[in-house]
Amino acid sequence: MPEPALKHLLSVDDLGGRAGIEAMLDLTDSFVEVLARDIPKVPALRGKTVVSLFYEESTRTRLSFETAAKRLSADTMTFSVSTSSVKKGESLLDTVHTIEAMGIDGIVVRHPCAGAPHRVASWSQASVVNAGDGRHEHPTQALLDAFTLRRHRGPSLDGCRIAIVGDVKHSRVARSNVKLFDALGCEVTFVGPPTLMPERLDGWPATVSYDLDDALVDIDVVYLLRIQRERIGQALFPSVREYAARYGLTSERASRLKPDTLVMHPGPLNRGVEIAADVADSTRSLITEQVANGVAVRMAVLWSLLGSGGPVI
Amino acid sequence: MPEPALKHLLSVDDLGGRAGIEAMLDLTDSFVEVLARDIPKVPALRGKTVVSLFYEESTRTRLSFETAAKRLSADTMTFSVSTSSVKKGESLLDTVHTIEAMGIDGIVVRHPCAGAPHRVASWSQASVVNAGDGRHEHPTQALLDAFTLRRHRGPSLDGCRIAIVGDVKHSRVARSNVKLFDALGCEVTFVGPPTLMPERLDGWPATVSYDLDDALVDIDVVYLLRIQRERIGQALFPSVREYAARYGLTSERASRLKPDTLVMHPGPLNRGVEIAADVADSTRSLITEQVANGVAVRMAVLWSLLGSGGPVI
Amino acid sequence: MPEPALKHLLSVDDLGGRAGIEAMLDLTDSFVEVLARDIPKVPALRGKTVVSLFYEESTRTRLSFETAAKRLSADTMTFSVSTSSVKKGESLLDTVHTIEAMGIDGIVVRHPCAGAPHRVASWSQASVVNAGDGRHEHPTQALLDAFTLRRHRGPSLDGCRIAIVGDVKHSRVARSNVKLFDALGCEVTFVGPPTLMPERLDGWPATVSYDLDDALVDIDVVYLLRIQRERIGQALFPSVREYAARYGLTSERASRLKPDTLVMHPGPLNRGVEIAADVADSTRSLITEQVANGVAVRMAVLWSLLGSGGPVI
Repeated sequence: MPEPALKHLLSVDDLGGRAGIEAMLDLTDSFVEVLARDIPKVPALRGKTVVSLFYEESTRTRLSFETAAKRLSADTMTFSVSTSSVKKGESLLDTVHTIEAMGIDGIVVRHPCAGAPHRVASWSQASVVNAGDGRHEHPTQALLDAFTLRRHRGPSLDGCRIAIVGDVKHSRVARSNVKLFDALGCEVTFVGPPTLMPERLDGWPATVSYDLDDALVDIDVVYLLRIQRERIGQALFPSVREYAARYGLTSERASRLKPDTLVMHPGPLNRGVEIAADVADSTRSLITEQVANGVAVRMAVLWSLLGSGGPVI
Repeated sequence: MPEPALKHLLSVDDLGGRAGIEAMLDLTDSFVEVLARDIPKVPALRGKTVVSLFYEESTRTRLSFETAAKRLSADTMTFSVSTSSVKKGESLLDTVHTIEAMGIDGIVVRHPCAGAPHRVASWSQASVVNAGDGRHEHPTQALLDAFTLRRHRGPSLDGCRIAIVGDVKHSRVARSNVKLFDALGCEVTFVGPPTLMPERLDGWPATVSYDLDDALVDIDVVYLLRIQRERIGQALFPSVREYAARYGLTSERASRLKPDTLVMHPGPLNRGVEIAADVADSTRSLITEQVANGVAVRMAVLWSLLGSGGPVI
Repeated sequence: MPEPALKHLLSVDDLGGRAGIEAMLDLTDSFVEVLARDIPKVPALRGKTVVSLFYEESTRTRLSFETAAKRLSADTMTFSVSTSSVKKGESLLDTVHTIEAMGIDGIVVRHPCAGAPHRVASWSQASVVNAGDGRHEHPTQALLDAFTLRRHRGPSLDGCRIAIVGDVKHSRVARSNVKLFDALGCEVTFVGPPTLMPERLDGWPATVSYDLDDALVDIDVVYLLRIQRERIGQALFPSVREYAARYGLTSERASRLKPDTLVMHPGPLNRGVEIAADVADSTRSLITEQVANGVAVRMAVLWSLLGSGGPVI
């Protein structure tokens, strides 16, 4: 069980290494069980209030956290940029002071700037969860991915070979996932064109390949990153068509994978770009399970940060 | 009582003809009784989650469904276009898979494209309610209109003469209402300028008139459709002023109606266009009752789709 | 205790003078106690529904009211301009009829036009709270300010000397606060450049000064108004820099205040304009407490308007 001392979840580093990660994944199992009940709701966080503070739009992440909070009986409120006094020029500091002064217990932050959730946490008595900050981290995504993989390949992921494919350079998902997969004993290869790779790996526990077909030989998991269409034409890669041909998981490429190779994607999908539609919908795809497990993982995280430490009932 | 087998409500056709419609209206009576209580709330859908998936703005419809869901103790979340990853180009399919994977039980869909809710239903384990799709259908509007009318003219509506006036061609309300009124034995006349009438009636159970004064003789109910001001100037009709003169329910026209003729409108009103302000506020107007009954009807629908089938308590 | 007959809170005048104001502040003490509990939630408004009807954006005010409503166990819904049928041209009258017809119990209104909440109240069976209307009033802000001040200077505020500094002319906060402070026996001075002062004081219980340094001598409370940056360049005042120099509470000015002089601001802050950052964060600043007390005050108001009149438990 995670330390009750876990105050914020800003980075995979906060989870306390392999033991802490595995404790959180074990705790998630309890919430999967809760979600299978006729009334998938527990009173654990009754009277607690969780605010989604979203400076970037994200349907899936916001709904996932809010569903998790509601199933724990917390009250939820949304503060998104387009409907907030941010337009009046209020600083992040004052926004956080305001939210906190209202007695909010948890703040789920998404922000385009790396490090913003850390600043929020430094200013706040409330517990803060990083729901994605710039190119930096997205720790609950990494937890739900590992949880999903563990359900298929577990309990141990030692030696599991994972290719993370795409725009690694700009991806917070890649950053959080490589840390967490590595902590659980996986072997990670980053795959993509040189322009979309980080300049230096500086201690990232991954190897690099520029050839997808080569990287897919004997791979256990293909984890595709979302291509940001807005980067196309920025001279980082030539065209959607060429990207799909060289780095997309096409039907043809998928047919050459081992029968038990699994396919993952954090969503939302660009069907026909980084992944062919039929591969996304195939039996080897865990994409829908990733979303489903996201709710249970976020229940575990919120319960760890905001709960009183009693048993899950 | 509607079949517990009712999985989705996409069209008036799903209600199972006159018997099914009347069962739903009878069930609505129970929820009107609930709404009259000191604490107008029942635990029927505790632990269920309903998402409003709105690709078109609509205050009244969204608030009505969310009020209904909350009064049944369901959790609610809103997913509206302007605050969603739709802007990132996520497909409707992936949005639905995401919502469903989170364990959402009901999806209330409004979409500018006819048929979109049917597609959502085909992709989803969750129950889907069509809250308006393009020019196609809006079945809960038809139910609440029939329920309201039955309270004044019921229990039987056999032989009730209803004029539906305005832009029938572009109206989902007209399409759903004519089906439902016809199933209950009403006689419907569509009234409006030729440019706003459907090209062919193909089996729609209605007669057509281009002369409002003629159509209003001996009518029991005048049902006015909202004029979309954005269509003005599209050569479909000349000017607001001329429209109001020829097809608006002016005070003068209203004064010639039978004393017990009722006036309905789905809202929001264009006062002074399709209806004069004093007529909208007169004792023959059911407009406010329509809104009030909307909550009870939507409670009945959500309870039928998502409930466990026990009695309403 | 306020009269159970308090139906709406549109203006400080509705509170019933000093006795009524003090009763509301006493009631707020009960809710401060509730908020200090492990589960800061009471069932007082279970089954009641409160809608935030916001025609102007305001994070802090909307979240504060919604937090208050949720902690009283009411259901809440948001109706904000950008996601509503207002864009379709629906009139305020019809919007209010619609909301009310759904059985909503309370409407919290923010609107750019002075008097709009009064019109809403005149049309509605639901209780209405004015959450800010144009340049007119913002009564819950005045209540929370007085409550905060009473906690530091109370129980009596008789003779307390307060400078309200800034754009008094365009400020609803100034209007509500001067009335309420005066009713409690405070002495209020308005301070600002002549262009930002009301043309005539017509019975406002305040004196006027155009010299901040002069006004701050022996003052007990400096209440800074937010400068609307959009007014800069409208010839009302020269530049942000000059405004800050002449009317901002700079560190230097703050150093000359009496040791026990308190600083207040309704937020959101323009740090470096009307208030220096270090003054805002200093021990004499009550800014964060104002926000915190806002939730308790709004619980007291909603409980008074919507509750059944029993004891707070």
